[in-house]
Amino acid sequence: MKISLKGLICAVVLVAVPGLAYAGFAKSEDAIRYRKAVMTVMAQHFGRIAAVVKGEMAYDQKEVAHDAMVVKAMSEVPWEAFMFPGSDMGDTTLKSSAMKEKDKFMSVAQKFESATQKLAETAAKDDLAAVKAQFGEVAGNCKTCHSTFRKK
Amino acid sequence: MKISLKGLICAVVLVAVPGLAYAGFAKSEDAIRYRKAVMTVMAQHFGRIAAVVKGEMAYDQKEVAHDAMVVKAMSEVPWEAFMFPGSDMGDTTLKSSAMKEKDKFMSVAQKFESATQKLAETAAKDDLAAVKAQFGEVAGNCKTCHSTFRKK
Repeated sequence: MKISLKGLICAVVLVAVPGLAYAGFAKSEDAIRYRKAVMTVMAQHFGRIAAVVKGEMAYDQKEVAHDAMVVKAMSEVPWEAFMFPGSDMGDTTLKSSAMKEKDKFMSVAQKFESATQKLAETAAKDDLAAVKAQFGEVAGNCKTCHSTFRKK
Repeated sequence: MKISLKGLICAVVLVAVPGLAYAGFAKSEDAIRYRKAVMTVMAQHFGRIAAVVKGEMAYDQKEVAHDAMVVKAMSEVPWEAFMFPGSDMGDTTLKSSAMKEKDKFMSVAQKFESATQKLAETAAKDDLAAVKAQFGEVAGNCKTCHSTFRKK
């Protein structure tokens, strides 16, 4: 079967980007759905590291390193999506204060990114004690942002 | 405020991993939710590249390279989640044949991973024509898997 490039591109674009606007989202629901997806992926991989830290899962350096890399990658992408106009309404737990205090929000996000970067670097080495310590740092950053900018 | 590591870990784990099983998922709904999240993140970034390829968005080499890196990262993580027992039922478009023909499914997934790897490598250089060609390759791989293993 011959598949044209144009046809493929159209098929993909029709699904993914019916219209592009701020940060590549057409409407606030798309931004909300995207950032929730990022958080779901991040939570899955961070949760696996948490299980290792808690001793519920065996420590496998390669697995933890991979999970930490995914957490780091996800920590880098969603912040602009939180600023999409109107995306503090609807199916979201984002407080409106995040947009009103954008600089503060982005500063907290940046600290989180730095912490996940360091977790990925730490996990690349075979030192579970160091991973546990840096895991705590990242978790602290999760909590800071959630307690400030997430609705109860 | 002093936050204990133990408290933080408990808070995170209670949300993320109430119980671990196959590939880190407690139940099939979790596996489905995770792979959908991966696909949502991937589609967002692949859709941005698609918009550039279609000429709807200006070509910015760094942006495209970053989007391609996220697509590559997402292409590496979800396949085991498709094999979670029972996750061909419920809120999913996965055909049961994916599990029955696991080797074929994984082979198609591997080809997709290779294509996204090459897209990321291509996008790291400043050659839009090459990006367009490799974008088509990746899209072809999307289509192959979807037409084989996704319900209409």
